[in-house]
Amino acid sequence: MKIRIGIVGYGNLGRGVENAVVASSDCELVALFTRRDPSTIKTRTGIPVYKMEDAVNMQDQIDVMVLCGGSANDLPEQTPEFAKYFNVIDSFDTHARIPEHFAKVDAASKEAKKISIISVGWDPGMFSLNRCYGQAILPNGKDYTFWGKGVSQGHSDAIRRIPGVKNAKQYTIPVDSAVANVRAGENPELTTRDKHTRECFVVAEEGADLAAIEKAIVTMPNYFADYNTTVHFISEEELARDHSGIAHGGMVFRSGTTGANNENHHVIEYRLQLDSNPEFTSSVLVAYARAAYRLSKEGQYGCKTVLDIAPAYLHPQSGEELRKNLL
Amino acid sequence: MKIRIGIVGYGNLGRGVENAVVASSDCELVALFTRRDPSTIKTRTGIPVYKMEDAVNMQDQIDVMVLCGGSANDLPEQTPEFAKYFNVIDSFDTHARIPEHFAKVDAASKEAKKISIISVGWDPGMFSLNRCYGQAILPNGKDYTFWGKGVSQGHSDAIRRIPGVKNAKQYTIPVDSAVANVRAGENPELTTRDKHTRECFVVAEEGADLAAIEKAIVTMPNYFADYNTTVHFISEEELARDHSGIAHGGMVFRSGTTGANNENHHVIEYRLQLDSNPEFTSSVLVAYARAAYRLSKEGQYGCKTVLDIAPAYLHPQSGEELRKNLL
Repeated sequence: MKIRIGIVGYGNLGRGVENAVVASSDCELVALFTRRDPSTIKTRTGIPVYKMEDAVNMQDQIDVMVLCGGSANDLPEQTPEFAKYFNVIDSFDTHARIPEHFAKVDAASKEAKKISIISVGWDPGMFSLNRCYGQAILPNGKDYTFWGKGVSQGHSDAIRRIPGVKNAKQYTIPVDSAVANVRAGENPELTTRDKHTRECFVVAEEGADLAAIEKAIVTMPNYFADYNTTVHFISEEELARDHSGIAHGGMVFRSGTTGANNENHHVIEYRLQLDSNPEFTSSVLVAYARAAYRLSKEGQYGCKTVLDIAPAYLHPQSGEELRKNLL
Repeated sequence: MKIRIGIVGYGNLGRGVENAVVASSDCELVALFTRRDPSTIKTRTGIPVYKMEDAVNMQDQIDVMVLCGGSANDLPEQTPEFAKYFNVIDSFDTHARIPEHFAKVDAASKEAKKISIISVGWDPGMFSLNRCYGQAILPNGKDYTFWGKGVSQGHSDAIRRIPGVKNAKQYTIPVDSAVANVRAGENPELTTRDKHTRECFVVAEEGADLAAIEKAIVTMPNYFADYNTTVHFISEEELARDHSGIAHGGMVFRSGTTGANNENHHVIEYRLQLDSNPEFTSSVLVAYARAAYRLSKEGQYGCKTVLDIAPAYLHPQSGEELRKNLL
């Protein structure tokens, strides 16, 4: 019997979950739920599409619901609501608001005696895991996280809010020399500016003051002022042609010392190179859906994060097979 | 109240555990146990030294016993024996015999209602974890593990058994071009010979037939015949001066695809660069000793591996702190 997966939301992430479930031999897709008119949605694999409010009547058909909405507006409401009826997984990624989101989802899941796993993906997610393992193994050390090269949605949105800007994409790019110093075990002190540069491709409205737009970008507090930022003005056609990629990635380092006099240095590096940011996130979501199903079968309930899940729960093989094949 | 750690065996690994416990603010060293005459051992930190057979009388003073013997002769006997009386951690690394070792230790731990965690270190250990995560996230993909540059004890021992050889050190070295191809996402088919080279530094006895020794090495089945192997004859002084390092490391890759037509490629890389192989292993052992203590406090028992332990158990901070700081 396969693990029966439901999907809520059919954007990039929902489509990615659809593909990831197809790639997982022990999982099957049961239904997609949407706020749109279901008749307007044609899914790639032909799974049936329902209205969001129909989900509550399908509790006995779905083992785990994967919530594929956005962190700004969808998940803060949807995850606690669906957690009343289902085991749920989400990719809530507003780092500062995770404790608050956790508390709400945990209360709903405990009440319903269901499992929820929040903030699943790569950061938060696999990067968080690696920060945890690294700190635990090398208590005398430093963490470094680099992101990119990849598009930052939040920074692209910030540019689009500037008067005179029609469209924009912003790339976060790690500084090669900083990465090289960290990888060499030099434990450098790095400022925000030392670690990443920001490159912006902007479509301006006709007649807009380009110099004013550029100044508004590079001096924007929090988003750009602390970085070396370059701005390129291009046409809408060029933006569509050259900058619609969804590649991303990054690195988490733990660099630390051991020994009676801290004389031995060690560098742990976890690196991701991703052609598709949403599809990789989706693949992580489905692996944790497997874990949620198993934990639920064990009678566990409440909210978890990737830090609370033993690796074996993610893998389709049994403990015996894993010990034989992977240890 | 700190976690009270006992150490069995005072070789490189035991000394490493001693340092790693000192570096962990929530752990303290209680005792060292040895097969040697305790009066002949002076520990770096001054922890008391006892005879191995005294351990059984100190069960109420030790929360977790870290077994620091060798996998060939010590651990197959010691771990099941100590598991009758203590929560135990070992670094058993004979991959093919892990299922058998697991079964014996599990039986003893279950009988005693204690926790044991076996095969802790970096391979088996952190590398196993990363194979597990990688396969679970990217089911359509390939694994690659590279080791080195570092000394292989097993291969060094094999050379030392050749007639006319007085001493030897063997380095396992990843082939740069193979690593580069994997990192570039090319998913190459790699033979044993493609992945690693072996470099041997040999001290021959006076008057030994060097050509015969070299031939015996490079044609040795399993150990060297499938590799490009180079042999250097050097003096005992040179061996001691240039080849007593204990650096090691390696990489685990998962390279796979997602998407409706597997059109998106992803590469996950986990890389270790270690100045001291035994000290890094010791640091992993102590992090898992923390996990064993916590699991035991929860009333869990039986044998586990790194695949069965959620990351949060390894880290001294609380779940709440980890969610706030690491996610």
